[in-house]
Amino acid sequence: MPLYGAIEAGGTKFLCAVGSGPHALSAEARIPTTTPSETLGRCIEFFRAQAPIAALGVGSFGPLELRRGASNYGHITATPKAGWSHTDIVGPLRAALGVPVAFDTDVNAAVLGEARWGAARQLETAVYITIGTGIGGGALLGGELAHGLVHPEMGHLLLPREPDDLEFAGVCPFHGGRCWEGLASGPAIERRVGQRAETLPAGHPAWDLEARYIASGLTSLVLILSPERVILGGGVMQPALFPPVRQYLSRSLAGYVQADALLHGMNDYVVPPGLGAQAGIVGALALAERAAR
Amino acid sequence: MPLYGAIEAGGTKFLCAVGSGPHALSAEARIPTTTPSETLGRCIEFFRAQAPIAALGVGSFGPLELRRGASNYGHITATPKAGWSHTDIVGPLRAALGVPVAFDTDVNAAVLGEARWGAARQLETAVYITIGTGIGGGALLGGELAHGLVHPEMGHLLLPREPDDLEFAGVCPFHGGRCWEGLASGPAIERRVGQRAETLPAGHPAWDLEARYIASGLTSLVLILSPERVILGGGVMQPALFPPVRQYLSRSLAGYVQADALLHGMNDYVVPPGLGAQAGIVGALALAERAAR
Repeated sequence: MPLYGAIEAGGTKFLCAVGSGPHALSAEARIPTTTPSETLGRCIEFFRAQAPIAALGVGSFGPLELRRGASNYGHITATPKAGWSHTDIVGPLRAALGVPVAFDTDVNAAVLGEARWGAARQLETAVYITIGTGIGGGALLGGELAHGLVHPEMGHLLLPREPDDLEFAGVCPFHGGRCWEGLASGPAIERRVGQRAETLPAGHPAWDLEARYIASGLTSLVLILSPERVILGGGVMQPALFPPVRQYLSRSLAGYVQADALLHGMNDYVVPPGLGAQAGIVGALALAERAAR
Repeated sequence: MPLYGAIEAGGTKFLCAVGSGPHALSAEARIPTTTPSETLGRCIEFFRAQAPIAALGVGSFGPLELRRGASNYGHITATPKAGWSHTDIVGPLRAALGVPVAFDTDVNAAVLGEARWGAARQLETAVYITIGTGIGGGALLGGELAHGLVHPEMGHLLLPREPDDLEFAGVCPFHGGRCWEGLASGPAIERRVGQRAETLPAGHPAWDLEARYIASGLTSLVLILSPERVILGGGVMQPALFPPVRQYLSRSLAGYVQADALLHGMNDYVVPPGLGAQAGIVGALALAERAAR
């Protein structure tokens, strides 16, 4: 079995791993996100100390330039993360390690990992949403990761207000209370109730509102992308949220799409990540596996 | 140049054509949509009377079964059009004409036609939206037409209410005033103002509201699919609507996506169909061309 390298590049840490699959990660490192040169330098040191890898996959915070023909392909572009705007990620890694480097968003990596080894196995079209400090989404569409002008920024899709939440101003610095992240991210819950989502008791009415907003966002995603399955992860997505999200999604779709999975199979349609918290790093491994082909 | 056959299958008429491109349609027929057997029979007669075709493309009203492995692949499924539910479209045409038959939604055919010969040439990722009696959308994603569990039903994505339109009940029988079609289709305009959209004068305030709702729907599409261009057609999309739609889309995106096309190129980003009213039939021809490969 060939070995691959994986980097989950986040704003606070870069997670590095070597392995051949989700249950065969032979080495891992957690590198704090400091300056680009220091952080990437430590990643390179890590991989040089391991057995040779056939390819490297990087799932990264963004925004990213993913168009192959662009002069800045493989860079992080204009990011709020201080010091990281216009950072070449692919170039230094490829030059130092001499292997093919696959590069995509952290959430696209996650959906690929789920399709390869997790909750979306054998599916060609699936969506992965993470709901936490922000809301982000990745998509596998007909077997390929979603790219275009840039890459999806699904967390900012626009949503109708729930009738019992008309006054809330929202927390998105760009779209206020018009977008998903502005209405349903962890900070939106915290702003409404004055305490962190993680500390809210199970019966708190904020959870019902949260489930309705998650279901509304999924409604638009289902109608636009027609995924075969939707995977929901992130710090806000506690197990107790799944049943009401499924119910509200059924109500919101209102039987419009005549598909068994939506009419009778909602429990298998909206699911947690099969890879749990490892979706990101294992997804980067799946990116590497694709790059090696 | 090989000849291809094309059918634009609509609820009131089936348009048939033979040709090799948008400017080389050598024969056309307009067949009323009556019963499936009569309508398809007349299509078959038409093609048998023409020079031999290398393949046939069909862009159809839906919903459709497009999954290759499904036992009812190539059928119209549960449609409100009387007599047409569960109609096999591909089977009878392929059996009678003995050529490969490509089958997709009318709006997916349109976006393919626009990518082949119209306003989305040389693009890999584009969206086509038609706004008329309903709202429908097709997408080319990384060079392939969008399919999944079923196919996109973009017209029903959910939208925030405009502050001056909070009381309107909407016209969508499934989603009332929560979805795009319920708020911004031709019948929604007519329900609000009491006259048909086509007869409304240019300065009527309903047009400004319409432009805002169109822009809101496009905002979600841009954030989810990241198309390189958006094509807007259909009876409601008068030329005067394009400038305000572009302005409101810029305002709604609020600079979140740092892409030149969105920040500085909106006039080339949201455009009318390059093929005009022929997008559907020429798109079916483009489907045929793909099927022949």
